Amino acid sequence: METGTSKAPPRPLRVALAGVGTVGAGVVRLLDANARLIEARAGRAIRVVAVSARDRDKDRGVDLSPFAWCDDMTAMAARDDVDAVVELVGGADGPALTLARNAIAGGKALVTANKAMIAHHGLALGEAAEAAGVPLKFEAAVAGGIPIIKGLREGAAANAIDRVQGILNGTCNFILSTMEDTGRDFADVLAEAQAKGFAEADPTLDIEGIDAGHKLAILAAIAFGARLDLDHVSCEGIARVRAADIARARDLGFVIRLVGEADVEQSGSGGAARLLQRVRPCLVPRDHPLAHVDGPTNAVVAQGNYSGRLLFQGAGAGDGPTASAVVADLIDIARWAARNGSAGGDAGGETGGAFSIPVGALVAMAPAEPGERRGRTYIRFTVADRPGVLAEITAAMRDAEVSIESLIQQGEPDEAGEVLVAMVTHEGAERCVSEALRLLDGSASLTAAPLVMPILAA
Amino acid sequence: METGTSKAPPRPLRVALAGVGTVGAGVVRLLDANARLIEARAGRAIRVVAVSARDRDKDRGVDLSPFAWCDDMTAMAARDDVDAVVELVGGADGPALTLARNAIAGGKALVTANKAMIAHHGLALGEAAEAAGVPLKFEAAVAGGIPIIKGLREGAAANAIDRVQGILNGTCNFILSTMEDTGRDFADVLAEAQAKGFAEADPTLDIEGIDAGHKLAILAAIAFGARLDLDHVSCEGIARVRAADIARARDLGFVIRLVGEADVEQSGSGGAARLLQRVRPCLVPRDHPLAHVDGPTNAVVAQGNYSGRLLFQGAGAGDGPTASAVVADLIDIARWAARNGSAGGDAGGETGGAFSIPVGALVAMAPAEPGERRGRTYIRFTVADRPGVLAEITAAMRDAEVSIESLIQQGEPDEAGEVLVAMVTHEGAERCVSEALRLLDGSASLTAAPLVMPILAA
Repeated sequence: METGTSKAPPRPLRVALAGVGTVGAGVVRLLDANARLIEARAGRAIRVVAVSARDRDKDRGVDLSPFAWCDDMTAMAARDDVDAVVELVGGADGPALTLARNAIAGGKALVTANKAMIAHHGLALGEAAEAAGVPLKFEAAVAGGIPIIKGLREGAAANAIDRVQGILNGTCNFILSTMEDTGRDFADVLAEAQAKGFAEADPTLDIEGIDAGHKLAILAAIAFGARLDLDHVSCEGIARVRAADIARARDLGFVIRLVGEADVEQSGSGGAARLLQRVRPCLVPRDHPLAHVDGPTNAVVAQGNYSGRLLFQGAGAGDGPTASAVVADLIDIARWAARNGSAGGDAGGETGGAFSIPVGALVAMAPAEPGERRGRTYIRFTVADRPGVLAEITAAMRDAEVSIESLIQQGEPDEAGEVLVAMVTHEGAERCVSEALRLLDGSASLTAAPLVMPILAA
Repeated sequence: METGTSKAPPRPLRVALAGVGTVGAGVVRLLDANARLIEARAGRAIRVVAVSARDRDKDRGVDLSPFAWCDDMTAMAARDDVDAVVELVGGADGPALTLARNAIAGGKALVTANKAMIAHHGLALGEAAEAAGVPLKFEAAVAGGIPIIKGLREGAAANAIDRVQGILNGTCNFILSTMEDTGRDFADVLAEAQAKGFAEADPTLDIEGIDAGHKLAILAAIAFGARLDLDHVSCEGIARVRAADIARARDLGFVIRLVGEADVEQSGSGGAARLLQRVRPCLVPRDHPLAHVDGPTNAVVAQGNYSGRLLFQGAGAGDGPTASAVVADLIDIARWAARNGSAGGDAGGETGGAFSIPVGALVAMAPAEPGERRGRTYIRFTVADRPGVLAEITAAMRDAEVSIESLIQQGEPDEAGEVLVAMVTHEGAERCVSEALRLLDGSASLTAAPLVMPILAA
């Protein structure tokens, strides 16, 4: 690294910030509080020069007066005094996407925390960034402050990744681990999470697993070199998990977590690669690294063919952690020019494709059919309190060739007159469980659809 | 990223490999097995062109015939057909250091897994690399396959790091977790670890905490921007931990792990920063992320002022994980030239200082005096089986103002006629515990030096 004192100091990386909510204010605070060390590490200062947000007069707890105010955020992309645009507006489309496109087309580096936009439009934005020769970075879009994009894209870059598993939604993890700690039921804990700000007023995107699905699709593209395919992420949420399920899982040595899981299978000899992407509540054995992830924490496990299993864990959301990820991206962008003593507004130190390889080299993979996958499964039935119910269920299991490892029937019906029957299967093909449930579909014995959760292998 | 088809494909990154033991053979295998994806991710191929090792004829399970053989490894540094030298010879000094110096002086990028060399000579090598404008990278030197150097240097780069804690020696962790699982004693488990290849024939560097100390010193320099200071890493090993200590710790809700811990304190108002670096067996509460690190696994926790607590975990050693880290460094080096369509033998995509900031900017910090640090402590005495011993110990605690939270005395003397007395203190200053032990020093009641282990805060 050449830092000869005879040279002029490198020019700061000049940043335009679109969206100054909690995360945007966090970025402003972080860049101020850690300015000296950031300049030392990046080799040049990183300075906000322009900001844009909906309401100029709102008190955000940070002083925005040093920065140029832009009423029209998309105009920031055209400013000559901006090297990098940070998009924190949110939303898959609309102003965020317009800004992103304009920034890239205008030759600016783009940094975003917007998982929905990257999950929906990441390939198009990545191609545009390649064409323009500018970095597109989104560390903050997945798992908050955890450097998991960097971990997969660079840290594990030498490996063929066999599988990615992650706890990718802090709201769901807070709810599930609070249910576990307190024995309270879902609706009750959700209300508390909303009161505490851990869950949105409309929590659908979180509790239905959709937000985790966005993140999983992004991780899968990077890990496997697959074209990002949000349409084939199957998402099942946590709203149907009951305190009774968590108690039974605990008795069996498991915790319940919402896990996003992706892998690639080769179908047959020389067959095309197929991508499996699923977000589901799972039973996690206590010796699995994801079993100890509590509260609003996120974690990702990546299985590399040489590295073995890597775990990355940290805060999945919040202004501080998210700002940490945004600014890490900015430091990557700032770094190269510093090394070369350049004072130019170049694209900086960022190297390689946004998804690790060029978008055009990502492989379009058909979705995998998981029916032949083998594993153990937890199935909980909500049944009427009458004779013959167990016989009907166990007959369906037998007919579908599902082998039952253990079965627990609650002693007494609950206040709603329902009885819960929980079972764990021996290892078997997933399609057999599906077939058993098909046989029971429409049965008068069942008062609600069964809840099926896979048991992760240790 | 510009990958225009009209351009000639970028030239491969040409690598010379010094040392072809298990890790070196792993690098050769990895570069072959994952060649296509590495080329896609790096934007150009990474090819071994020359190798050097002690014995040309040894069967290493990999075919070295495609590569130029160099009898004199230091001559590899002068080869015109080499862009990067990978040093896997080992040893802090000697041929490894000569090769490293020559490679850097010859304008080659240097990648090494050699923690002892980096811990002893990292600053000088870093300065040489800056002067020569070449990358110096050592991801594999710390925590095997875990990308922790990258995690601190880049992933957490936006943060002031408050503290680093790590399980940095797989041998010790294997021994301690096996003692825990089996109830067997240290010497017995060490012998098994040696038989299984998890421990060296001479295990001193591992079990005395020296190897972990090397790694801790490297992490501390990067995390805190401190001049690497191996001389002031205090190391205490695990040889005195007994199965009885582990059992008692478990009863109290803790596991025992060898933990390296570093932080920076500001002494007084405007005082100079002081660096604390310690490797010690510690009692780790079950809700601490390091409590679930078993077997030969490593893990590092970094506390950032914006990111919060980040955990990185994975295999701490082995040919595959170490090769994964070595090749990740090579991919970083290869990447930039690809983006720019350059076919040159330039220093590539690597950006920033080896220790995150230029060596000249690292701050020389005096060692911290930990006496005023407060915490809870586990103390185990080995005492003679006679009256008055407990009174003597507890009087010393009282006189030194150590407040005892719990005390367990074993019922019967063991076969050696010894009785173990274990206590846990309330939170208090470390110097008080030291003072109590000073008061007891030379006492005829104690048959061996007490074993003192701190209790980590959750």
